[in-house]
This record gives sequence, structure tokens and C-alpha cells, in this order.
Amino acid sequence: MKKVLVIAPHPDDETLGAGGTIRKFADAGYDITVLTVAVHMPPLYSAEVPETTTREARAAQEVLGVRNSIFLDKPAVFLGDIPTAEFNALILDQVAASTPDILLIPFYDRHIDHRLIFDACMVAARPVGPGKNISLVAAYETISETHWNAPHIEPNFTPNFCVDITEQIDAKLEAMSSFSSQLHEFPGPRSVEALKALALFRGSQAGYGYAEAFHVIRMGAELFI
Amino acid sequence: MKKVLVIAPHPDDETLGAGGTIRKFADAGYDITVLTVAVHMPPLYSAEVPETTTREARAAQEVLGVRNSIFLDKPAVFLGDIPTAEFNALILDQVAASTPDILLIPFYDRHIDHRLIFDACMVAARPVGPGKNISLVAAYETISETHWNAPHIEPNFTPNFCVDITEQIDAKLEAMSSFSSQLHEFPGPRSVEALKALALFRGSQAGYGYAEAFHVIRMGAELFI
Amino acid sequence: MKKVLVIAPHPDDETLGAGGTIRKFADAGYDITVLTVAVHMPPLYSAEVPETTTREARAAQEVLGVRNSIFLDKPAVFLGDIPTAEFNALILDQVAASTPDILLIPFYDRHIDHRLIFDACMVAARPVGPGKNISLVAAYETISETHWNAPHIEPNFTPNFCVDITEQIDAKLEAMSSFSSQLHEFPGPRSVEALKALALFRGSQAGYGYAEAFHVIRMGAELFI
Amino acid sequence: MKKVLVIAPHPDDETLGAGGTIRKFADAGYDITVLTVAVHMPPLYSAEVPETTTREARAAQEVLGVRNSIFLDKPAVFLGDIPTAEFNALILDQVAASTPDILLIPFYDRHIDHRLIFDACMVAARPVGPGKNISLVAAYETISETHWNAPHIEPNFTPNFCVDITEQIDAKLEAMSSFSSQLHEFPGPRSVEALKALALFRGSQAGYGYAEAFHVIRMGAELFI
Amino acid sequence: MKKVLVIAPHPDDETLGAGGTIRKFADAGYDITVLTVAVHMPPLYSAEVPETTTREARAAQEVLGVRNSIFLDKPAVFLGDIPTAEFNALILDQVAASTPDILLIPFYDRHIDHRLIFDACMVAARPVGPGKNISLVAAYETISETHWNAPHIEPNFTPNFCVDITEQIDAKLEAMSSFSSQLHEFPGPRSVEALKALALFRGSQAGYGYAEAFHVIRMGAELFI
Amino acid sequence: MKKVLVIAPHPDDETLGAGGTIRKFADAGYDITVLTVAVHMPPLYSAEVPETTTREARAAQEVLGVRNSIFLDKPAVFLGDIPTAEFNALILDQVAASTPDILLIPFYDRHIDHRLIFDACMVAARPVGPGKNISLVAAYETISETHWNAPHIEPNFTPNFCVDITEQIDAKLEAMSSFSSQLHEFPGPRSVEALKALALFRGSQAGYGYAEAFHVIRMGAELFI
Repeated sequence: MKKVLVIAPHPDDETLGAGGTIRKFADAGYDITVLTVAVHMPPLYSAEVPETTTREARAAQEVLGVRNSIFLDKPAVFLGDIPTAEFNALILDQVAASTPDILLIPFYDRHIDHRLIFDACMVAARPVGPGKNISLVAAYETISETHWNAPHIEPNFTPNFCVDITEQIDAKLEAMSSFSSQLHEFPGPRSVEALKALALFRGSQAGYGYAEAFHVIRMGAELFI
Repeated sequence: MKKVLVIAPHPDDETLGAGGTIRKFADAGYDITVLTVAVHMPPLYSAEVPETTTREARAAQEVLGVRNSIFLDKPAVFLGDIPTAEFNALILDQVAASTPDILLIPFYDRHIDHRLIFDACMVAARPVGPGKNISLVAAYETISETHWNAPHIEPNFTPNFCVDITEQIDAKLEAMSSFSSQLHEFPGPRSVEALKALALFRGSQAGYGYAEAFHVIRMGAELFI
Repeated sequence: MKKVLVIAPHPDDETLGAGGTIRKFADAGYDITVLTVAVHMPPLYSAEVPETTTREARAAQEVLGVRNSIFLDKPAVFLGDIPTAEFNALILDQVAASTPDILLIPFYDRHIDHRLIFDACMVAARPVGPGKNISLVAAYETISETHWNAPHIEPNFTPNFCVDITEQIDAKLEAMSSFSSQLHEFPGPRSVEALKALALFRGSQAGYGYAEAFHVIRMGAELFI
Repeated sequence: MKKVLVIAPHPDDETLGAGGTIRKFADAGYDITVLTVAVHMPPLYSAEVPETTTREARAAQEVLGVRNSIFLDKPAVFLGDIPTAEFNALILDQVAASTPDILLIPFYDRHIDHRLIFDACMVAARPVGPGKNISLVAAYETISETHWNAPHIEPNFTPNFCVDITEQIDAKLEAMSSFSSQLHEFPGPRSVEALKALALFRGSQAGYGYAEAFHVIRMGAELFI
Repeated sequence: MKKVLVIAPHPDDETLGAGGTIRKFADAGYDITVLTVAVHMPPLYSAEVPETTTREARAAQEVLGVRNSIFLDKPAVFLGDIPTAEFNALILDQVAASTPDILLIPFYDRHIDHRLIFDACMVAARPVGPGKNISLVAAYETISETHWNAPHIEPNFTPNFCVDITEQIDAKLEAMSSFSSQLHEFPGPRSVEALKALALFRGSQAGYGYAEAFHVIRMGAELFI
Repeated sequence: MKKVLVIAPHPDDETLGAGGTIRKFADAGYDITVLTVAVHMPPLYSAEVPETTTREARAAQEVLGVRNSIFLDKPAVFLGDIPTAEFNALILDQVAASTPDILLIPFYDRHIDHRLIFDACMVAARPVGPGKNISLVAAYETISETHWNAPHIEPNFTPNFCVDITEQIDAKLEAMSSFSSQLHEFPGPRSVEALKALALFRGSQAGYGYAEAFHVIRMGAELFI
């Protein structure tokens, strides 16, 4: 039974980027932990946002079959105020505690929190210390932010790992519908329609019905042998 | 009134990659020419394929508002047998004859014909001779083939130009439905569902409902000033 | 009549990178705003520098036909001290206020201020909120700094949009000559000779006499249809 | 039990690039096929070369635990004379016949045969038809040729999949020693010393003792779930 | 005294790309060989072109201080008809004969001949056999063709080696003026004005007056120790 | 006699990345300065670490023939706390003081200190002011950290400059053995075995026995003419 750690910058990123995959892994009996690093707080956001989005995330993660849900409650958009060494230690400790076989992290994209968390995850994922026993490190896409990187100036997302979620697409969309505070109306980029279309496109790209797409960063044959 | 030349490797590529944009341009009164370079022929394909697909293309292009439709009837997958100088001249002559302001060409992708045509188009599009007066050269994506390039070994499609086709998506799908010999059933990558999903995803990426995506190769301010 | 917002890290960047284009747009009746974010200040620079360069910039921008000139007077090389959220809001508010059709920003290059401003501009330029109605986002090159990025380690400037400034090259050089405090003698990289040579080279690359070169980040057909 | 197809341009490439991995897979009970496409022939090579290298390859593959060994005996360096459609069909038929879960192919590198075979493999590996059921497509490095691509002009090999071959390194080197006609003396790039050093370096990069490195082209969760 | 081999696809490429550097090397007493591979011939070009351009090249190379001038007289644009093995041998033999310390080759750009010659040069430049003793392999830019590669789809020229030709710029332009059959009037991309502007821009990029720019492919410390 | 400045983030990086090259340069009579920027300090590291590693570095550098050894003693992992302008000035002053012909700097890799120092070095290395007279700027690889960058998201190390250290490999390994506090046991990535294997692999890649590899950032012909 594999152990999986999904690192989400904010509540909903785990669902947007890897919701179907999480459910597929849960259906296969894997032990899933979701670590949510930040939450939108005053003064940038209103006071009830943290509680609301955390509650929504718990509901979504229940749909997805997440066993362990951890919220670090760091302030969104202010992660840069945490000293690098401290922030790296924060993430490393979580990786050390959950001893994952599979680590899913956000792609380095337009959102500053995604970038800082990507960097800290990359440090934690090094093949020494706690990272040594990870068989697969992969980055997921977050609809909108990932596709807003500047073409050919910043890294552009081109997946090499697509997970067939044809049987999990309904669960993913149901989980997403838990985030009523976060969902846009179509044609907003975080609408249910856009999320479903991206999954169908990724599926078509890889020979499946619906899929979620990842960029493999590091992998060993322990993953499957 | 702008003149547009769309170069399609095979019948249906113009619709797959730029059908909505063609219709949008036609609606704006632009003069559209579609040049289809190759056609699937015996011995690789059965004898009726050329006639069928050409007829389908004419029907689709009528839906899209194409004014001039040219078929060079070169044998698909055997374009490499034509000497480079001759093939370049073939495309250059067409560019010279149609004097486009906007040139839309296939992305350099997994299909050998797309690659050879891309190369010839790039020669014809050089800012000297007939290419000098082109204001915009852009490459469109062909669902499936474009997304089958090897990630990070071959060029990967990352668009920097998205055309809002929210009002043309129905026309695009209607045009596509003309290609009954080419369409796949969902979840095939050339299904109506996949095409619509890609358009919705591209739209979500660019702030529109539905969109078609392009990679800008060369542009001048004459395009809009 | 299109509205254009040019974001300059320091006084002179708008002229170095886009002076001819600004003048061409002004000649076409466009409404041009230049936002200058930072200025060189004590203790790194002597006390009269801010006033001098701002006065030079106003003179240059008058030559170029700029209608609105905004100076935020942030301290050059110390932009990193401004919290990310605050700095993003600063730029976003200006984009919201000027509602541009065309947004020209500095390329992500060797100068730390160019990098931080590029990042904030990319956030403001996202196709949601104030950024939604921008038809063209493009990055200009700043002679010297842009060409000092590490080859193949950092992003390298390869233009896909060249603006013919053959009729504006004299105005560009005249505007540049306003910056007597900033100009180098040839063979300094910010000499009039170097600036003219770059314009002639970019022109030769694109089939024009003189040109300015840009990297298209995001574009919609609203730009020209 | 997984089925593996390794495509080798010439006798020895399967051992150079994936010998330890093949043995590891064989030890795990996987069913391994090696398809060797070309062989060095007169007039470029002396008459006994084909027989010698094929015999050496059979000996090496026996050490590695290869179950099926197929030699197409196409003329090395003259693969370009085979029409593209025919060559693609040749590879596709082999993929269709062996129905692999895992497909290992040569990286697109300095050797023209490696390039042409890479291209044909990419066509065969598309997620339609025979390629649809492949769970993993990855490219291996061939010591010397892969590292002779022009830096930053041609694709450069940067692995994201390293297979721990600490327990198979001896078998790999033993297999390699079968190719007495191909081995160089140290410091030749195809010496036993160089091969062992590369394996140790790849191991150090990934937290193992010895490893072989691959570039993942396409992967699905069927690989491990 | 170093030996230098400059490989020119056609008469004038050696001057366009490396004329000032050749002269600088000659001034330093280096032994320079220029190998011109192809020439423009009937039926694509008129009958007197080969003689004219070869005579012009000899005149130009005399200005530049070239000691050995070799013309292979292969037909321009038809190099693809020569079998790969034969073409590789042709270039390899020349490299073997001239035993260069420094090898300057054309960048892989929009001209098919430049691409084929680049490939053959890369084979000849491998650090085995005749290539083993080369201390520096670098690719030069050919004004126009090199800058017409598709941005971010094909390799884009970003130099990491600039040669100060401030004292050789006059000789370079004089040599170029020998090619009266090839020169364009300004604003043509192969005008004397464009060539001089590019040299001034490259100089400004690297801290010199005028410069020629190269992409280093392979270098050893033997170059300077 | 050339002057060389090697910038090491921490004690041992100069030996890991360029130890053999330093010794080769010293053997050739070059004047070598090593600038070590940071040191591991409390509270992240125990109190004796700074003294130990500095003493080890002095011993190693004596083996390598370093003439001038400078330690700035900045706190490792906390370099980000130093304001950018101040940190840039710190490095620039050292470059100005040592007036190098050759500047060797760390590659931009997984270690935050390497990134910050790379950035400051790139500013100091600009071809203006103190950087104007540098003939060669190149980045070395640091075993482990350099190879832990995310493939195809972050810059990946692909060398274009390999220095033959066949005669210096013993000195390099002896120097490395001075760092008893930093060395890992095999199969740790900083073991003597891994270091030797990397050198042998780089040698095999470039036609040498053992080599060190670099990425050329900027070079002029003054290096060798």
C-alpha cells in the first residue's frame, strides 16, 4: 500500500490539480495525506475566509478519500516573510513525518505562493534524508495560474504523466463543488465547466476519457517494481 | 479588408486548428484562402479517400466562410519525396499568389507532413520577397498530433495568441461534423467532445468562453495600426 | 482609438525599449500612458538624480507624444523591500485606472528592478479583473540589461513582434538625447550609436528599415479585428 | 507480469543504455523483448561485422535475461533511404506484435540512426492503436552519442527517471564485456570504466549506488496501480 | 600558432558570420582555412553565378587573410540529395586534412544547407577521431537566415562568445563589399549597413566597439593554456 | 599570466566544482584567488563548523595551488537577509579588487545560496565597470545540488566547456579528502567515488580521461589570442 503526500498551497489546489488522482489512489487503497500550507486571511481577505475554505476543503477531501488532512494556516501571499530556512524546515518536517512514496506538488507558476512552495518542496524532495525514499515526485497543474506563466520566458507546463480519471471525474467535480466560495461561473477559469474541459483535453492527449496531467520531476523503478 | 491564408496539411486541419478563427475573420469581412497541401491516397489509404475528404473539406469550408479553396493533392506521408527546392517553391508560389496579411500554418508536430509543411511555410514567410508584406505569421495546434510531441525534446505548444471564438464555436463544430470520415467517437482525440473541450480550455486560459490558440512566429504593427 | 500603457522601471526605459513604438502609436492617435515605477535615489545615487532624470523623462516623453506621465518614485534597487502583495496592488491599481488595450512591460532581465516589475506586471496582466480587457501584452528589450542575461540559464530575448519605426527613429533618438545624464559615449551600450544599431538590426531581421522588438506574452484578436 | 520492449538502433545500445534496467526487470519476472533495428554492414563496415555484433548481442542479452531477441538487420547509417511510411510501419508492427507495457527507446541524439528510430518510435508510441496500452515510454542515454548533441541547440539529456541498478551493475558490465568488437580502451567513451562511472554518477544523482537514467516521454498510472 | 577551419555553406557566409574574426586571427598569425561547401548553380541560379561568387569569395578572403581556400562546389539547396554517410565523410575528410584547433561552423538556422552542414560538422567535431584535437567548436550567425528561425520552436541564437573586431570592422566591410552580386541595398538584411549595425550591437552587448558573436558548442582549456 | 577568481558559496564548492581546473591553472602559473562567501553557522549548524570547514578549505586550497584565499563569513542559508544592493556591492568589490581574466561561479541550482550568489556574480560580471576586462565567465557544477534542479522547469546543467584534469584528478581528490567534515561515504553524492565518477564521465564526454565541466556564460577572444 503506497503512501501519498499532496501539497496544496491553498484549500482547493489539491482538488483542482489532483482531485481525480487522489480519489483513484484512495480507491486503490493508498494512504493519502493532503498538506495545505496557506490560507487566505485578513487583511487581504475577509475574516471568515479561513474557516470557510478550510471547511470546504475538508468536505472536498472527504469526497476524495483523503485519510489525513493537515492545515498549516500560513498567511497566503505573505509566505515570503517566512525565512527560507524556516520555511524549508516546515515542509521538510511534514515530508519526514508522512514518509510518502509519491509526492505531488504544485507547478512553479504565476502565483507567488505556488513558487515558494515549489521551491521548498524541491528541497524536501532531494534524494537524501527524508526525500530518499520517495519513488515519484510530480507537479500538478492548477487551472488558470499554471497557464498564466509567460510563454517561453517562464516554465511552461507540458505534461509527461497523465492519470486516467474517467471513473473519478464525477468525484472530482463533486469535490470541487464543495468549494462554493472559490468556484467561478462559466466562463471563469475556475468553473466546473473549465475543469471538466481540461480533464477531457488531457484525456484526449493521452488516450483516455478524462485525465489529470503532471510533470514528472523525479522517479525511481521502486514505484512499480 | 485583410487577406488570410491558412495552410492545411490535410483536409480537416484548417478546421481543427483554426475553424473558429476562420469564421470569425470571415464574419469580419476578411478574404480567406485555405490551401490544402496533401491528401490521403492509395496505396496507404483506400481509393475513395481523396474524393471523400476533399468533398468534406469543401462542405466544412463553406460553413466557415472560406472564399478560396485550393487543393494541391500531394500524397500524404510521401511529401519527403518531393525535392526541398521544389516543395519550397510550391508553397512560396501560393503565398505569392494570395498576398496574405495573415498566414496561419501548422505547428511543427508529430506528423511528418506537418513538419515538412511547417518548414516550407517558414521559408515562404521570411520577411523578404512574397513574405515581406505578411503582418502576422502564427502556428495553430492540431488536436492530438500537436500534443504528441515528446515533452522537452521536441517543441511543445504553448500559445501566446488566443482568439475568442465563443460566437463561432457552433460553426466550428458544425464544420467539423462535415468530416464524418475523419471524426472519432469520444473518447477519441478527434471527437467533437475533445475539440469542444480544447476550445473551452483555451478560452479559460485567456479570459474567453471558447478560444483557438496560436503560437505567434512573426508579427508587425501593420496588423492593427 | 487604442489606449496604451507602457511600464518603465526607471526613467529612460520606456524610450530605450519602446520609444519609436510609442511615437508611432501617438502618431496614430493612440492614448499613451507611461508609468515609471522607480527612480535612482540617495544613498545609492546623489540627491539631484531623481529630479534630473524625471525632468529628462518628461522632455523625452513629450517628444514621443505621451499624453499621461506617472511617476511612482519608488527607490530603485530597493523594490524588493516592498511586500509582494503591496507591490502587486500598486501595479494592478495603475492598470485598473488606465484600462489599456496594449500593455508594454520590461523583459525579465539582469536588472533586479526589471524582474520584480515584470512579475508584478504579469500578475496585473492576468486575463481576469483589470487585465481581462488587454488585447496585447508584450515585453520590450532594454539595451544592455536584456542582453546580459546568462545564455541558456536565464530567459533570452528572441522577439516575435517587430514594430517598423523607420519614420520614428529620429524621434526616438531625439527623445533619447534628452537623457543627457544617462547616455554613454560610444562604445558604451547606452550610446545613441548602439541604440540606432540595435534598431537597424531589428529592422533587418523583420524586413524594415528600423524597428523595435518585443516578445508577445498574450494577445487576442480584439487587437486588430 | 509486465511486458517490456527495448528498441536498440544497433547491437550494444540496449546494453549501454538500459542493460541494468533490463536485468532488473528480468529479475522481477518481466517479459523482455529487444528489437535491434540496424547493423553495421559493408560497404561502410567489413563483412564480418554483422555476424560478430549480432552474436555479441545475443550473448549480452542472455546475461541480461532477455527473452525475445529480434534483429531487423537494416543497414546502419542508411536508414534514411527507407521511405518514412515504410519505416514507421516496420516499427509499428513490432510494437503491435509485442504489446509492451513499457517501451524504452533511444534518445534523439547525435547519431542519425538514433534520430530516425526515435521518430519512428514516437509515431508507434502515440496513445492510439498499438501504442494505446503502453504505460511508460522513456528514452535512454547512449554514452557518447547522447552527450555529443550541441548544448542548447539540440535537445540535451536531463533525466527524470533513474533506475537503481546497484544489484545489476555487475551483470551490465559483464554483458557489455561481450561486445569485444565494440568496446574502447579507457579513456575511450565506450570503455567499461566510462560506463561504470556514468552509472555511479547517475546513482549519486538519484540517491542510489549505481543507476541508469531515462527521460520520461509518456506515462500513465497503469504503470503502478 | 593556431589552425582555424571555417566552414561556409556558400560563398559569403564566412565573411558575414566570421569575417572580422578571421582577420583578427590572421593578424595574430593563425593559419586560416575556409571550406566553402556549396555554390548556387543552374537550374535554380543562372550559369555565371558559381564563377562570380567564387571569384568574389577569393577576393574577400584575400582581404581577410585566409591562407587556404577550398571550394567543394556542391549544388546549393540540393545537399539533401547526397547520402548522409557520404556527406558526413566529405566534411570529416576536410577536418582530418586541416587538423584545426578552432572550428567555426554555421548555426542551425532557416536555410536548409546551413542545417545539413551543421549536422555534418557536428559529426566531424565529435571528440573522437579527427575531432579529438579541436579546442573550440563554435557556431556563427548568418545575418537574416539565423534570425529567421521560428522563435521558441527552432533554436534561437543567443551568443556566449563575442570577438572584439573593432580593429577589423573595416576589413570585414571591405571584404563584404567584394560580394557585389550578393549585397542588398539598405534596408535589405544583407546590406553593409545591416552588417555594421549587427557588429555594433554585438559589440555593445559585450563591452566592445564592434564584435562578432558565436555560440560555443565545445571547448577545452587547450584553447588558452 | 592570467588571473583567476573562483567564487565558492561555501567551503568545498571550489574543490567540488573546479578543484582540478584550479590546480591545472596553478600549474600553468596562473594567479588564483578563491572567494568563499558563506559559512555554515549556528543556530542551523553547530558552533565548531565555521572554524572546521574554513581550516579544511585552507588545506584543500593549498593542495590546489590557490594563492589568495578570502572568506567573507556570511551566514549560509541566510544570504537572503542581506539587501540586494549591499550583497551585489560585496561581490562587485571583490571582483574589482582581484581584476580577474577568468571568473568561475556556481551554477544556478537547488541551493538557495548558490542562486543568490549566481545572481550577484552575474551583476558583477556584466561587461561594464570591473567586469569589462573579464575574458571568460563560466559556471561550474556542484555535485548533487546542480543535478537536483527540476528537469525542464529549472535550468539544467549541460556543459560546453570541459577541462582535461587527467593529470590533476589525484590532486582534486586529495584536496577533497581534506574536507573530512563534508565527505559522505559512498553511495552518498559527495563521496570521493561519486566525484571521481563524475570527472571520468565528463572526461569521456569530451575526449579526455578525467575532466571538469562548465557552462560558458560570456567569453572574449582575449582569452586566447
